[in-house]
Amino acid sequence: MRLKDVGERRVIAEIRRRLGGGGIGVRLGIGDDAAVIRSPGEWLLTKDLLVEGYDFRRSFHPPRLLGRKSLNVNLSDIAAMGGRPLHAVLGLALPGSTEWEWLLEFLAGFQEASCEAGVALVGGDISEAREILISVTVTGEAGLFVPRSGARPGDLVFVSGTLGDAAAGLRLLEKGARPGKDRAVGPLLKAFLDPEPRLELGSLLARRRLASAMIDISDGLSVDLAHICEESGVGGEVELGRVPISGALRRFMKKPLPLALDGGEDFELLFTVRPRNVPRLRRLGPRFKITEIGRITAGKRIMAVDPAGRKKPLKIRGYEHFK
Amino acid sequence: MRLKDVGERRVIAEIRRRLGGGGIGVRLGIGDDAAVIRSPGEWLLTKDLLVEGYDFRRSFHPPRLLGRKSLNVNLSDIAAMGGRPLHAVLGLALPGSTEWEWLLEFLAGFQEASCEAGVALVGGDISEAREILISVTVTGEAGLFVPRSGARPGDLVFVSGTLGDAAAGLRLLEKGARPGKDRAVGPLLKAFLDPEPRLELGSLLARRRLASAMIDISDGLSVDLAHICEESGVGGEVELGRVPISGALRRFMKKPLPLALDGGEDFELLFTVRPRNVPRLRRLGPRFKITEIGRITAGKRIMAVDPAGRKKPLKIRGYEHFK
Repeated sequence: MRLKDVGERRVIAEIRRRLGGGGIGVRLGIGDDAAVIRSPGEWLLTKDLLVEGYDFRRSFHPPRLLGRKSLNVNLSDIAAMGGRPLHAVLGLALPGSTEWEWLLEFLAGFQEASCEAGVALVGGDISEAREILISVTVTGEAGLFVPRSGARPGDLVFVSGTLGDAAAGLRLLEKGARPGKDRAVGPLLKAFLDPEPRLELGSLLARRRLASAMIDISDGLSVDLAHICEESGVGGEVELGRVPISGALRRFMKKPLPLALDGGEDFELLFTVRPRNVPRLRRLGPRFKITEIGRITAGKRIMAVDPAGRKKPLKIRGYEHFK
Repeated sequence: MRLKDVGERRVIAEIRRRLGGGGIGVRLGIGDDAAVIRSPGEWLLTKDLLVEGYDFRRSFHPPRLLGRKSLNVNLSDIAAMGGRPLHAVLGLALPGSTEWEWLLEFLAGFQEASCEAGVALVGGDISEAREILISVTVTGEAGLFVPRSGARPGDLVFVSGTLGDAAAGLRLLEKGARPGKDRAVGPLLKAFLDPEPRLELGSLLARRRLASAMIDISDGLSVDLAHICEESGVGGEVELGRVPISGALRRFMKKPLPLALDGGEDFELLFTVRPRNVPRLRRLGPRFKITEIGRITAGKRIMAVDPAGRKKPLKIRGYEHFK
């Protein structure tokens, strides 16, 4: 059964039935011209688009994981502000030939991720398109949010998790690898197909005022560090030998560093910390995998420092749309 | 020059330069992982998608008017709640072959409509697609918002403006009519290409507690009245002879009623009023074109009443995606 056999009204009814209930501060959810929300004093608003053929491919992205990812990439933006996600609106443009089962799996994944994060779907829009397009907008509580612009010379640069896994996962998927088939690359495939937003870490870093600037790594470490430096009016140095690389990625590639620097879609947190706050950061303990990878400098240049201590300008190269 | 010659970064820089300033309650706008907004107590959230080939066609939608429309259809949802629009986020998925000039015109139109309504662009996302897709999310102040669900038997049904013009405009455009070429159909073309959100009327109806239920006519009078009736658990009657039809539409078609009932995209307000509030409604005066077209009834049936007083079930037929 395909969407053209089902019609828009049943699609909307199904979304409302599955995802339309409750939520913190939701006075009016799905089913009116706009949702009505009771808010905390300051709140966050972010939006991400996922387009078939550009941001994902239907042939290798299981719809349940795509449903999870389409919410979770937005939650990663909330995490990068140190916020707490609250509400989502979902825009879906779908071909009439889309399988009903595909949509149900997608919605199940979206619902899973919503429940995990305590996010309520409060509205959205459905349209038709030749390729699948997913547009999610998420709100969150801002609290003591951390902007990109707060880095100062002398701050240390940290990153969560490991980098380059998602980009390696995408390469593997393009070459035919599939989840479940090859255990050794499982973590790489998962990193691309089903990334986890670092909400708990982001929120702790904000509430304890540990991070001075923060961003999630969506474009790649080099580009996203450049974003922090640009918005903060500073430069930086990355110790290439310290960039965290997973065992799975090391086994997959002899020279994984370029993927870790420029791969993108890691959805890990990149943040800066004043030196006096580093001891308190360490006390967060091993629950969070955090690695110190460099420092913020005066000026505007971003340098790569090799293990021998030699400095070269860091190449800022991430994926850019249209080019 | 095309977007593939320009690249994503310049596109984002251009949007930020043109549209990224200020706004009520905007603590952090374009340029971070999420916007940070200081809000009134209760606020509105709504989203609309516009997809090339389905919701608009590039061949006959001037990009400036499309930029206006992509914001204004969202503002119409805010108007239908009786709210005041505040912030927008803009998602754009564009082919790399899109002309830079097309985008600049689109942004100019979006900016025009933003300025007219006092809306601040606070964020968004850019991606690539084979067809143009525009996803706009708008927030607003809820105030004494009017839901779809407040209609009661005995309420009278009113509509603003005239109906069917936009649907007629679309037909004309499909047949080759273009704005400026044929003056007689100008209002019909404008109704489709450049609809106006009824923000002032919607806000007045809410603040003065005149409307008990309200919706904007995007799917068509019959479907949108059915939405009000369904959400309110009531039925209704429409006096066919009272449905407001413009002179331009009468000149264009011998039998314009079907377009006025089912045409869609009018973006006029359809609302219900308790009988005791009708005198106060009349006092709004001729500044707003408002027509009484029927009443709310007990039960669930929606009837059409012809000028001779005969009643038949109203056919609920509006455009449905996928079918």
